[in-house]
Amino acid sequence: MAVQQPPWSLPTQRAPEPVLKVYNSLTRTKTEFVPNEGRHVKWYNCGPTVYDASHMGHARNYVTQDILRRILTDYFKYDVHFVMNITDIDDKIILRARHNHLISKLISETTSLTPELIGKVQAAWVSYVQSKVSKGLADSDRPIAGSEREAWPELVQRFRDKAWRLQGLQKDEKFEMHFNAANATYNSLVQAEEQLQSGQTGAEVARSLIDVSKDVLALALDKQFGSTVNDHTIFRSLAAYWESEFFKDMRRLRVRDPDTLTRVTEYVPDIVEFVEGIVKNGYGYEVEGSVYFDTRAFDRSDNHSYAKLEPWSKGNSELLEEGEGALSVTTGRRSPADFALWKASKPGEPSWPSPWGPGRPGWHIECSVMASAIFGDNMDIHSGGIDLAFPHHDNEMAQSEAYHNCPAWVNYFLHTGHLHIEGLKMSKSLKNFITIDEILQKYTARQLRLAFLTQLWNSKVDFTESLMTGEVRNIEIAFNNFFTNIKALVSHAEAEGPSLDGKNRFQQAERELTDSFHASQGAFRAALCDSFNTPQAINVLRELVSRTNVYINASSGNLEIGLVQRVARWVGEQLRMFGLGEGETSEIGWGQERNGDEGTVNREEVLMPYLRTLSSFRDGVRRLAIAKGENALKDILALSDKLRDNDLVPLGVALDDQEDGRALVKLVPPAELIKARDEKRAIAEAKAARKAAAVEAERQKRIAALEKGRVPPQEFLRPPNVPEGTYGNWDENGLPLTDGEGKELSKSASKKAKKEWELQEKRHKDFLEWQRQEQQ
Amino acid sequence: MAVQQPPWSLPTQRAPEPVLKVYNSLTRTKTEFVPNEGRHVKWYNCGPTVYDASHMGHARNYVTQDILRRILTDYFKYDVHFVMNITDIDDKIILRARHNHLISKLISETTSLTPELIGKVQAAWVSYVQSKVSKGLADSDRPIAGSEREAWPELVQRFRDKAWRLQGLQKDEKFEMHFNAANATYNSLVQAEEQLQSGQTGAEVARSLIDVSKDVLALALDKQFGSTVNDHTIFRSLAAYWESEFFKDMRRLRVRDPDTLTRVTEYVPDIVEFVEGIVKNGYGYEVEGSVYFDTRAFDRSDNHSYAKLEPWSKGNSELLEEGEGALSVTTGRRSPADFALWKASKPGEPSWPSPWGPGRPGWHIECSVMASAIFGDNMDIHSGGIDLAFPHHDNEMAQSEAYHNCPAWVNYFLHTGHLHIEGLKMSKSLKNFITIDEILQKYTARQLRLAFLTQLWNSKVDFTESLMTGEVRNIEIAFNNFFTNIKALVSHAEAEGPSLDGKNRFQQAERELTDSFHASQGAFRAALCDSFNTPQAINVLRELVSRTNVYINASSGNLEIGLVQRVARWVGEQLRMFGLGEGETSEIGWGQERNGDEGTVNREEVLMPYLRTLSSFRDGVRRLAIAKGENALKDILALSDKLRDNDLVPLGVALDDQEDGRALVKLVPPAELIKARDEKRAIAEAKAARKAAAVEAERQKRIAALEKGRVPPQEFLRPPNVPEGTYGNWDENGLPLTDGEGKELSKSASKKAKKEWELQEKRHKDFLEWQRQEQQ
Repeated sequence: MAVQQPPWSLPTQRAPEPVLKVYNSLTRTKTEFVPNEGRHVKWYNCGPTVYDASHMGHARNYVTQDILRRILTDYFKYDVHFVMNITDIDDKIILRARHNHLISKLISETTSLTPELIGKVQAAWVSYVQSKVSKGLADSDRPIAGSEREAWPELVQRFRDKAWRLQGLQKDEKFEMHFNAANATYNSLVQAEEQLQSGQTGAEVARSLIDVSKDVLALALDKQFGSTVNDHTIFRSLAAYWESEFFKDMRRLRVRDPDTLTRVTEYVPDIVEFVEGIVKNGYGYEVEGSVYFDTRAFDRSDNHSYAKLEPWSKGNSELLEEGEGALSVTTGRRSPADFALWKASKPGEPSWPSPWGPGRPGWHIECSVMASAIFGDNMDIHSGGIDLAFPHHDNEMAQSEAYHNCPAWVNYFLHTGHLHIEGLKMSKSLKNFITIDEILQKYTARQLRLAFLTQLWNSKVDFTESLMTGEVRNIEIAFNNFFTNIKALVSHAEAEGPSLDGKNRFQQAERELTDSFHASQGAFRAALCDSFNTPQAINVLRELVSRTNVYINASSGNLEIGLVQRVARWVGEQLRMFGLGEGETSEIGWGQERNGDEGTVNREEVLMPYLRTLSSFRDGVRRLAIAKGENALKDILALSDKLRDNDLVPLGVALDDQEDGRALVKLVPPAELIKARDEKRAIAEAKAARKAAAVEAERQKRIAALEKGRVPPQEFLRPPNVPEGTYGNWDENGLPLTDGEGKELSKSASKKAKKEWELQEKRHKDFLEWQRQEQQ
Repeated sequence: MAVQQPPWSLPTQRAPEPVLKVYNSLTRTKTEFVPNEGRHVKWYNCGPTVYDASHMGHARNYVTQDILRRILTDYFKYDVHFVMNITDIDDKIILRARHNHLISKLISETTSLTPELIGKVQAAWVSYVQSKVSKGLADSDRPIAGSEREAWPELVQRFRDKAWRLQGLQKDEKFEMHFNAANATYNSLVQAEEQLQSGQTGAEVARSLIDVSKDVLALALDKQFGSTVNDHTIFRSLAAYWESEFFKDMRRLRVRDPDTLTRVTEYVPDIVEFVEGIVKNGYGYEVEGSVYFDTRAFDRSDNHSYAKLEPWSKGNSELLEEGEGALSVTTGRRSPADFALWKASKPGEPSWPSPWGPGRPGWHIECSVMASAIFGDNMDIHSGGIDLAFPHHDNEMAQSEAYHNCPAWVNYFLHTGHLHIEGLKMSKSLKNFITIDEILQKYTARQLRLAFLTQLWNSKVDFTESLMTGEVRNIEIAFNNFFTNIKALVSHAEAEGPSLDGKNRFQQAERELTDSFHASQGAFRAALCDSFNTPQAINVLRELVSRTNVYINASSGNLEIGLVQRVARWVGEQLRMFGLGEGETSEIGWGQERNGDEGTVNREEVLMPYLRTLSSFRDGVRRLAIAKGENALKDILALSDKLRDNDLVPLGVALDDQEDGRALVKLVPPAELIKARDEKRAIAEAKAARKAAAVEAERQKRIAALEKGRVPPQEFLRPPNVPEGTYGNWDENGLPLTDGEGKELSKSASKKAKKEWELQEKRHKDFLEWQRQEQQ
C-alpha cells in the first residue's frame, strides 16, 4: 500500500517510576533491588527453633517478614519463592525433651509421698541452689560448698535470711528466674514434710511436690539419667508438637505459610555431605568426632571474608558461645572463633551416622545446607531477626561460600528489628513476656499487624498499651468508618438507580479528588520503594481517606459515586495486600475482622436474625394499627425508634435517618454501634438533665414570685407585713389612712399605698389560682 | 568503628526481565509500553451506543478489553484509570425511540379493526416495498413506481410471484431482512382482510396486525409523525433502559465496571465549548446550523496528520457516510471527507442550545470531549473494536489534536479483532445473531472468557460450537480436575499431620518440578509481555499442569505436598487474574462456576437487599404515622401486606401471618414464592369472581321481586294486570266488587282479592322505597 501511517515515537515519561531499594545489612544502606533472574526471587527466611510456645518476639519477626513478602509478591508482583526452615534438632530441644521425659517418668512411677522422694527433692534443691543461686546468696563471692547433705542446713539458713530481701528485687534476669524456682521448691518441701508427718501421703500430694519442683528436679534427674534417653521419637515429638502450635499461631496472625518448608531432621544426610565438602575445600577440621569451621583459614583466603555482616564482632566470645549451645564441647578448636559444623553426640543426645562417628549437625550448618538444596550457590534475599546477624548468619554465609567456593551466597540480607514491651526487653522475669495466644485474647490480628505496619520493619518496635489503644485504634476506626460510609452511599446510589443529567459529570471537585487519588497512588508506590516504608504508606492511605471524606462532606448529595467507590476500592485493596483482611479485588473494605476460628458464612445463618427483626417490627406495627388505640401513631413512631436504637444495634446495622425521610443503611461492627449509641444517649441524658435543671430553676423562680401574693391585699399594708408604726389606722379594705403618728397621709403617700395595694390584690389573685390548681 | 564491612556490588542479572510490548494500531507493530507518568495509566475505552440488547459482538469486545485491563492492573500492577463512555445520543437511538413511541401510541389508540387501519398498513407496505425491496423483485432494475394505490396491485402480483423463489435464498443481508419484514406484513394484511369480512374486528385482532407489521409501519408513521416527537424523556428513557441492561450483561460476563463512566447527555455544554475551540483554531466551519470538521485544513497543517490509523481510508465515502448517521444532512460541506462536529436538529430530534442554533453533537466529538475532560491533552491507551478505527477513532484524534493543538492525543491505540460465528459475520438475517442473554443460557461466563482467551485479542475470533465443546471444554476440565485432585491431596496430607523424615526433602524430582515451575512463571510473563499473548499464556499454564500431574503420578504417595500446592495456587491465581473465577489469594482453584446472577457469599452483598427492604418499610410506616392522615392506620396495614406480598417475594422471604399476630419467617427460593403467591391470587380472584356472580344473581332475584311491586295496589286487580273480564267493577281503592259478568263476588273470592291487594300494597311500598334509594 502506497499510503503510509505517519511516524510514531515512544512516549518520553514525564515522571519515571520509582525504583525499589531495600535496606541491606550487607551494606547497612538502602541498595537498589535487582533479582538475579528476571522477576524470580529466591528468598530464605530463618524459621523458629520449636521447643516452646511462640511469643510476641516471634510475632514481631514473622508478621514483619510476611508483610515484606506480601509487598514483594502482591504489590510488586515478583515471583517469590519463600523458603523457611524449622530447627528441630538443637541443644535446647534435646534438654527440654529429656527434662520433660524424665519428669513424666518420675510422676508415672510415683504412687505415694515418701521420705525418699522428699530426700531426692532436697538433694536436687541443694545442688540447684549451689550451682545457680548461691553466688547471689553469699555475703561474699564465696560459694557454699560441700556435699548435698552437708550444705543443706547452711543453705536453708542463708536462703531464709536472704529470701525476703531478694524477693521483688530485679537483679540479673537469670538469677531471678532461678531464685524463684528454688523458692517455690523450698516452700513445697516444707509443706511436704508437714504432710508426711500428718500422714497425708497420697499419690496426689507426691505428684504435686514433683510438679512444683520440676524445674529444680529436672536438672538433677537429667544429670543422673539424661544419658539414658536415646529414643529419637522423644526429641522428635516435642519438636513436632511445637511446630504445629507455631503454624497455628502464625495462621491466626494471617502469616502465610512458606512456599517451601525444610526441617533439619530431613536433611541430615545432605548436611554430612556438605560438611565433607567444606573439609575437602580446606575450611573445616575434625576434633574427636566433631568438625569445626576454620574461620582463620577462611578469612585469610583471597576470595572470602569472614563475618561480612558484623566484622567487628569476630572475637565476641559471649555471642560465639551462645551460638554453640549448652551441650557443646569446644575443646581442641584451632581458634576460639571457630564453630561446630558437626557435633559428636554423647549418650542422651540424638545422633546420626557420619564419617566422624555418630553425631548431629551444628546450628549454623542447617541453613547453609537447606537453602543450598533449594537455591544452589546464590539467593536474592536472606532474612531473619537482627539477633541472628552474628554469629548465626555470618557463619552460615561463611560455610556456604566455603562449600560453593562462591564470592557471595546472599545478595540482600534483611534483618527485622528488635521488639520491646513498654520500653523494656521482653523477658519472663520482667513479667512482660507475652505469648501469641495471650496477645490474641486482647487484640485482633489486624490490630497487631497495624501496630507493626506503623513502624519501620528494620527499626526497634516498642509495643505499648498506648500504641494499641491510641494510634492503632484510631487508624482502624478511621478506615472502618470510611468503608462503612462509602458502602452505605454506594448501596443508596444503587437503590436510587443510575443518576441522570450532570451527576456523573467531572467538575472541579471531581478533578481535584482524582488528581489527589493518583498522587496518592504514586506516593504509596514511592513509600514502598523506599525500603518498604510502611508507616509512610499507611499515612498516604489515611490522608487520601481524609481528602475523600472532605469531598463527600462538601458534595452535599451531588456526589460522583463512581469516584469515591474507586478510591475506597483501592484503599481496601492495599490494606488487604498488607494482610489486614480478606476480600475480593472488587470489594470495598478489608472484610469483617474475626478472631481465629469462625467458619464460613451460611446464607441462612447470616440472614435469619435480620429477617426476624424485620418481621417482628412489622408484627408490632400491625398490632398497633389493628388495635387503633388513642396513641397508635405515636406508638408506631416510638417502635420505629426502638428498631433503630435497640433491635438493630446488636446486629451491627445502623440506620441514619435523613431529612428526606429515607434512612441510610450501614453495616457496622456491633461494638462500635453500641458505643456510639451509648455516647449519644449519655449526651442526650446530660442535655435533658441540664434542661430539667433549667426548668426547675424557672419553676422555683415562678414559685417565689407567686409566694409574694400569699398575703391578702387587706393584710398587706398592716404589720407584720409593714414595720409596726408605719401607719396609724386603715379603712375596711386595709388601705392606710394615717401615718404611724396618726397624721393623715399626704395625697402622694395615699396614692402610693393604693398602688401597692392594687399590685398585691393582683398578686394574691394569681396566688389563689395557683393554689387551686395545685390542689387539683 | 575501624572494622569495615567488605565491599558489596549490585547483582548483575543473569536473565533480565522481559519488557511489555503491545500491538499499537498507530504503528501496526508491537511497541514497548511506556506510560507517561510512572505507573499511572490513562485509558479510554469506547463504550456502547445503547438502543438494543447486547450481543456476542459486544461480548467479544468488552470481555477482551476487560482481560487486557485485568492483565495491566492485576498482573503488571499498573495504576490504571479506565474510563468508558455511554453513547446516549445518536441517530439510531433517535429513530428507535421515535418508532417505538409511534407504534405504542397507535396501539393504545386502536380499539377495533377497521378498513382505515388496513388501508394505512397497506400504504406503509407499498412504500416499504418500493423503497427497500423492489429492486430485488423487479425483473430488470426498474423500480416499481407510482402512488401507493397505483403500485399496490402490481407489487402484490410481483411479490406473490417471487416470494417462494426468494425465501431461504441468502442474498444481500439487508435485502433479506427487509424482504422478511415485508412478507410478514403482507401475510398479516391478507389475514386481516378476511377477519374484517367475517366480522372479527376486536381490538386484539387489530393490535396483532400492528404488532406484526411494526417494522414496516414504523417507517411510514415516522415519515408522517416523526417530527412531532420532541419530548427528551422519550429518547432518554430508551437509552437508560438499554444502558442498564448492558451493565447487567457485562456483570454476568464478569466484566468489571469502568472506573469512570461518562454519558454524552451529561457533557453537551462541554461539547459545545469544544466545537467552538476547534472552529476558533481554524479547523471547523458552520453550514446552516451544523458545524463540520475541515479535514483538508487539518491535514495541510504542519503539526497534524489526518487519519493516522488508516490514512488509506481517507476517501472511503461508504465508511464516512455510515459514520455520519441516518438522519444527517451533509450538503454544503467543503469536502466529502469532512464530518459533522455538531448537527442542526430537525423537529423530532432532541436538541440543545448552541451558538449555531438548536442542535446535537456529532458522533465522533463526544469521545474527544469526554476523554479530554478526564485526561486532558494526552492519554496512554485508547481502545475499541477494530470497526471503529476509521472513521470514528481517526476523526476523534483529529478533533482532539485540533482542539488541544497537540501532536499526539493517544499514545497507544488498541483495537480488538472481529467476531465471526461459525465462519460468518454475525447478522440477524443469517440467523446467527446471538444476544448475551442467549449465549449465557448455553455457556458459562467462564467458558466464554476461556474462548476469547484462547485467541489473540487483536485477531479475528471465530466462535464455533466445536471451539466451545472441544478446546474450551477440554481446558476447563483439565484445570478442574487438577484443582480437585490437589485439594484432595492437600486435605489428605493435612489429615495425616506433618510428614516426617524425608518426605519434605527436595530430591531430584522436586528440584525438576520447581525449576519447571519457575520457568513457567517466566514464560507466562514473557507471553503477556508479548502484547498480551493469552493463548500462549494459557498454554504455559496447561503444560505446567501436565508436568505437575506427571510428578504426582510418579511420586506414588511420596509427594512434596507443599510444592504441588504452591504450583496449584499460582495457576489458580493466574486464572482468576484473567477473570475466570473468584477466590482469595491463598485459595487453590478458581472458585465454583456459577451462571449469571448468584452472588458470592459476601455478607454485605447478601444482607443489603434485605436491610434496604426493612429500612424502606420503616420509612413508609414513619411517613404515614407522621402525616397523621385520616386513613393512616389502614394505610399502614396495607403497607404491611405489600411488604409480605410484593417486596419480600422476589427476595425469597415468606412471611406467614399467624393468628397470634406473629408472622413466621421462611427463606424460600423466590421462584417458588412467586408461584405460590400468584396461585393464591388466582384462587382468591376465582373465589371473588364466584362470590360476585352469586351476589349478582341474588341482586337480580331481589330486583325481580321488587319489580313485582311496580304496579300500585289500586291498579293491581285491574286490566292489564289481570285478564280483561276477570272483574266487572271496583271500589275507589281498586278492590273488585263484581266478577266479569257483573255478579257480586262471593265472600271467599272477595277475601282472596283483598289479600292479594294487601300483599301488593306491601310490595309497592317496598318498590317505591327501592326506587327512592336508587335515585339518590
